Formats: sequence, C-alpha cells, structure tokens
Amino acid sequence: MNRQQLISEIHRKKSFLCIGLDTDLKKIPSHLLDQEDPVFEFNRQIVEATHDLCIAFKPNMAFYEINGSTGWMSLEKTLKIIPENIFKIADAKRGDIGNTSTMYAEAFFKTLNFDAITVAPYMGEDSVKPFLQFENKWVILLALTSNSGSKDFQMLMSDQEEYFFSHVLETASSWSDNQKMMFVVGATHPRMMERVRAIVPDHFFLVPGIGAQGGSLEEVCKYGLNRECGLIVNSSRDIIYAGNGKDFAEKARDKALAIQRQMSSLLEQNGF
Amino acid sequence: MNRQQLISEIHRKKSFLCIGLDTDLKKIPSHLLDQEDPVFEFNRQIVEATHDLCIAFKPNMAFYEINGSTGWMSLEKTLKIIPENIFKIADAKRGDIGNTSTMYAEAFFKTLNFDAITVAPYMGEDSVKPFLQFENKWVILLALTSNSGSKDFQMLMSDQEEYFFSHVLETASSWSDNQKMMFVVGATHPRMMERVRAIVPDHFFLVPGIGAQGGSLEEVCKYGLNRECGLIVNSSRDIIYAGNGKDFAEKARDKALAIQRQMSSLLEQNGF
Repeated sequence: MNRQQLISEIHRKKSFLCIGLDTDLKKIPSHLLDQEDPVFEFNRQIVEATHDLCIAFKPNMAFYEINGSTGWMSLEKTLKIIPENIFKIADAKRGDIGNTSTMYAEAFFKTLNFDAITVAPYMGEDSVKPFLQFENKWVILLALTSNSGSKDFQMLMSDQEEYFFSHVLETASSWSDNQKMMFVVGATHPRMMERVRAIVPDHFFLVPGIGAQGGSLEEVCKYGLNRECGLIVNSSRDIIYAGNGKDFAEKARDKALAIQRQMSSLLEQNGF
Repeated sequence: MNRQQLISEIHRKKSFLCIGLDTDLKKIPSHLLDQEDPVFEFNRQIVEATHDLCIAFKPNMAFYEINGSTGWMSLEKTLKIIPENIFKIADAKRGDIGNTSTMYAEAFFKTLNFDAITVAPYMGEDSVKPFLQFENKWVILLALTSNSGSKDFQMLMSDQEEYFFSHVLETASSWSDNQKMMFVVGATHPRMMERVRAIVPDHFFLVPGIGAQGGSLEEVCKYGLNRECGLIVNSSRDIIYAGNGKDFAEKARDKALAIQRQMSSLLEQNGF
C-alpha cells in the first residue's frame, strides 16, 4: 500500500486506528480452545468484526512465535483473510547486518506479504536499507518507544546536546523519505512527540501506548497530527480482550467503534 | 547450559568456535533440493560433521523465517539433533516492551529450547529483563556490531564523552551478571574490543565478523581473551559453504578443523 492509498483509507473510514493482534492462548475465550487453530479462529472473528473501523492490523510476532511453527501457520492464515485495503504491519522489531536484513525483508514482505515492518535502529544504515528496496512496502523504525526502558538509551544526551532518539530520526530520515518510512513514537511521551514532529514534520508515526499503557488519544493528536493526519494509533489488549465470552468479537467491535468515533471527532476538529 | 559447563566444553574441545547456521536454499548444494526438507538435511549433515569441533551452533532466524512456517519447522527439527553439550544460540536480535519480550523469551527458551538469544538494547531495561528470568539461559546483548552501520548510532558520542555502546555496556551489565549475560562485539573492531574488555572484563563476548566480514582471529584474541577465555567466535558462510558438492559436509569439517586448530594454538599460547 502506498502513502496516498493509506491517507485515502483514513479519510474514507474517518479512522487512524490500528488494531494489534497480540493473540495469546492464555487470554482468548476458553470456548475457542477446542477449535483446530484457536489463534486463527480468534483473529478471524476479530478481523471480521472490526475491519471497517480500523485502517491497519498489527500482529505482534512474539505472540505467534511462542507457539513455534504452529504459531507461524496461524499467522499465515490470518494474513490471508485480512482485506486488501487494510495496512498490514508486522510488529517484529527486526534489524541485522545487511545480508540478514535482506532475508528478513523477504520473509515479511514476500513470504508473508506484510505492507510494513517495525525495525530496530541500533545496527545502523546497512541494517535498515534492505527493507527499503521493496515497492509500496514500509519500514517503521523505532524512535521513541512507549515503555519505561525508553529512558535508558533513547533519552541519553549526545555531545551535541540532543537526545539519542533525535539522532536516530535525523539520520534515518536521510535514508529514505516519507513514502517508505514511518517512525514508532509512543503515546506515553506526548510532549516529546512535539519535538519529534519538529524533526520529521511529514512522516507518519505508528503510536503505541494508548489504553493499557496509559497514553491519551487527545494528547497524541494535539502534538502528533499533521496536515495529512500522519498518525496510525495502535490499540491491542483494550480492544481484542474487551470481552471474554462467546460475544468477544462484538465487545471488541464496541470498543473499536468507541475509539473510531473519538478519532472521527478529533479529525473533524482538526479540519479534516 | 551454565557458565561453568560452557567453560569446561571450551577446555575439553580446545575450541571457542560457534558455527552459524545461515542456511540459504539458494546456496546449499543442489543435490539436496529434492529432499523433503533440504534446509534440515543440510543442517543435519553440517552438525554431524562439525559438532566435535565447535562449542556452539547459531541458527540465524532470518534464514528460517524467509521460508515461513516451513522454515520454522526446519529449525525445530535442527534443534532436536544438536547434541546436549552444545550451546544453542538463537541469532534473533529480538527486544520489545516487557510483556512482549516475555513472550519472545518463552518462544526461544521454552518452545524452541535455545540456551541463548541475541537481544537488541534500544528499548532499554524492561525489554531485556524478561529474558533474564530463566535458569541457565542467556541474553547476548548487541553492544558493538560487526557491520558498517555500527558507526551510525553505536559510535555516537554522549555528553559524558563516551561512545553510546559504552553506555549500553555499563547500564546493561548492572541488570544481571556474567552468569546470564554476554555481549555481541564484532571482530571488525579489534582495537575497540580492548575498550569493551575494560568495561566488562569478565563477560563472554559473542564475536561475529571473522572470515567473510574480514575480522582476524589473532586480533580478536589479542584484545578479547580473558582468563576464562571469554570468547565465542562465530563463523558462518566460510564454514558451511566451504564446499558445494556432495562432499560439502567434509569440506565444512575441513574448514572448521582449521579454525579449531588455530584456536587451540591461540589458547595454548595464552596459557590455557
């Protein structure tokens, strides 16, 4: 999916919601456990119940890898039933030396057919560039993450009196443009988001951290919206585990609908 | 495997060689391609031919993920035939918010039964600590990697006039001790290895970058050896692709034997 198609979907659905498919066998409703593939069955019902309210789904790879090759099969089946017009993000935090990143890029963009993958920046340019060689595919680079550990290294100060994450933003944004790269910016640092916006005014951000992690959608919009929206805001646990009975998909839809309505209203307030 | 067992194996085999299983369908001998699982068959023959010469095998996850769930099955089968006394390293470069890192740790330490996993430090303490909660299992944290991109961020200078990777070493070594944590330090920076050794004198290093990437084993030993060896030196392509015919496993053994003999002599020179 290219940038223009993504922006069109945001306008059409009045939503910039990404639903995180952090599907955990220990948390899904127990009546699904006697299905042949409970993880896929859970995902199938969530996708069917919510796909008109969100513009992206984001499977978190750890939740599939914990089930080994069986987990990868659940993921492969899930990807096949997500509609074409939805942006598919692999939350994988990959990144390695060039020849290995090339293999990861093929794994996620060709074998699995994701539109985007989250990538960790620590290993620098040749670890990220292989992901940028695919048409209409995206790198979503970690910049300022939503967790408490973000202060350990991302917020270290450089000898140029800049946060380390600012160097990542400045350097990485020179490797590509806003047609192929986005950044992860956590909702738990709304004021920092203002600094990030100043460095990369036109890029999209993938924003985790609203809901269970405590970030606020209003604050994210206040500091992160740009003239083409520029935000994909993720919610995982709050939506997919909204219910725990046979009606879990309906409950997930209710929760997603509440967030989509809030997004619609925030977009309107901001002149979209 | 615990630290003492690892050190015993190094003494017994007079080797600190790790063989990287970067098994690529495009590079393995063509006569294997009509096997049911060519990747597994290649690995099986490599493991059988070399396991007495190395103390660790390191499958690189990207090379399995490119084949999707089939690739994970090849990996699962490979892990089952690696002997008990060999240290099994998942070269996975994982790392995410706490609840996700917990899932990755279970995936690699329980589901797949690896002894160790490479972890990226960018997301800080709560992204690494979940991997430290398992007995006799290891985090191998990226510190100074072997690739050219290591200069982009790892070698940025902080306001305390230290390299960024030095902060990673100092901070991360306070999260655990040398019984559960190692560091990745590339062979392509031998003089830098001296600085790293000064910060973490007693930790093991996993050292990629000899062979195809240009690093030298003598230099690595000069600057990296400590009184308990403290080095696990990886070679992947140079060994596993030493031959391309029906005798590929013999050729791999010849290459591994040459490196093991060099290691044995370096250990002896250094009083082991």
